[in-house]
Amino acid sequence: MSGGLDRFSLNQATTKRWPVEETVNGCVKQGVSQLGLWRDQVDTFGLERTAALVRAAGMSVTTLCRGGFFTTPGWLDDNRRAIDEAATLGAPVLVLVSGGLPEGSRDLDAARRTVGDAIGELVPHAEAAGVQLAIEPLHPMFASDRCVVSTLSNALDLAAPFPPAAVGVAVDTYHLWWDDQVWTQLARAGAEGRIACFQVADWITPLPEGVLLGRGLPGTGCVELRRFREAVDATGYTGPIEVEVFHEAVWSRPGADVLAESIEGYLTHVL
Amino acid sequence: MSGGLDRFSLNQATTKRWPVEETVNGCVKQGVSQLGLWRDQVDTFGLERTAALVRAAGMSVTTLCRGGFFTTPGWLDDNRRAIDEAATLGAPVLVLVSGGLPEGSRDLDAARRTVGDAIGELVPHAEAAGVQLAIEPLHPMFASDRCVVSTLSNALDLAAPFPPAAVGVAVDTYHLWWDDQVWTQLARAGAEGRIACFQVADWITPLPEGVLLGRGLPGTGCVELRRFREAVDATGYTGPIEVEVFHEAVWSRPGADVLAESIEGYLTHVL
Repeated sequence: MSGGLDRFSLNQATTKRWPVEETVNGCVKQGVSQLGLWRDQVDTFGLERTAALVRAAGMSVTTLCRGGFFTTPGWLDDNRRAIDEAATLGAPVLVLVSGGLPEGSRDLDAARRTVGDAIGELVPHAEAAGVQLAIEPLHPMFASDRCVVSTLSNALDLAAPFPPAAVGVAVDTYHLWWDDQVWTQLARAGAEGRIACFQVADWITPLPEGVLLGRGLPGTGCVELRRFREAVDATGYTGPIEVEVFHEAVWSRPGADVLAESIEGYLTHVL
Repeated sequence: MSGGLDRFSLNQATTKRWPVEETVNGCVKQGVSQLGLWRDQVDTFGLERTAALVRAAGMSVTTLCRGGFFTTPGWLDDNRRAIDEAATLGAPVLVLVSGGLPEGSRDLDAARRTVGDAIGELVPHAEAAGVQLAIEPLHPMFASDRCVVSTLSNALDLAAPFPPAAVGVAVDTYHLWWDDQVWTQLARAGAEGRIACFQVADWITPLPEGVLLGRGLPGTGCVELRRFREAVDATGYTGPIEVEVFHEAVWSRPGADVLAESIEGYLTHVL
């Protein structure tokens, strides 16, 4: 089975309440050698300690989530720290969620320009650290309060002024599945060398209040996950595929069970 | 003030629990001469009775909501009936919400083709009745369970094979505000003669569970409503502007108050 898991990575958010030591042990037991980490969980266990734990287990880190939120005071220092943390953890990619509209603003165009400017300020630091920034388009239902970048097309436009090694995009099936332009834009992303990471989750309804915790494990919803994987592969991307799910019902279950189900969903519906 | 309300239309969904006789009286009192009607509310009061009531008050009907749901059994008869009802009511436009993915399906492309085919079947009946069909793109958060048409661009592509007098699009700020392509697509819609109706609502968060009843009265959220109105006007559209809001907190208030607030929001934030 391990051949089937060569590209599989567990994003730590999927098993949010599984302490990191148990997560690493559980991954090793189930033949998983890659992890996507979250800053809050890294902070809880300690940055150097997490880096050492993962390294000692022979695992590699696929992404660090997340930087961004460019309209929050202190964003520049915070994002520089996030880049340094990614470097310390050996994460090649820092995922950026841009943040929503500034309080009281209705100016989406200006907010999107702000994202481009902020990334421009971060690029030298990211290049020096050897960390690629990944602009993540979030589903348009998050446009006002979480991420003004709503499509792969928009993310690629924002990345365009910068070298691909410094700025790529995060492709997440949950956020992009509805877009009739996504297949064209995936080909564009590949041609431009921008696919920095690939995350999978399924779309399930009804959405919960606040809509953040509505992501489904692969295979439980209506996203053409295999079509996405094939489209991403067709661009030449051979990197990791993270299962990243936020859902209260998933979080309330034992981490090892959720990991097993993530693997099963991945093998059946993604690979 | 009545000059300011020349294009204002109250969509009946905004005051869902206001009986239609009170709605018509209330509109006349507040200088509103146009109504967008909903089939369920028309059915409750009676089709001919509603038509007579509105006519007797000197009001006109701007749209009938809604046909569509093309994967529901019986859709063809139901949509033909909806066209006939629109004709009886004197509504020039029948708004179409396409419906989501068929049960168990993940094939969005096929679902979108089904919408085009279904509209093709309806066009002769609509032309004979003198009713324009309006394809309404709904926010992508409804793509799986309510409307597979998620962008103005997609709606225009689906309308393209048919004459504009028979098939147009519904422009609704709530569904389209997040799209960085919307300004280009509005110009395209105008150039192609496809803007069949224009509805306004504001985007407010947090979204409620199920996300359907999250629309805000004009001015309560973050949508650039005036920019939309100006962009729609710039295409040459001079038709009605409906305020259409679904929200439990709005519905629970007296209809006359909600109408007054809709007018105020329209005058301040749209006009």
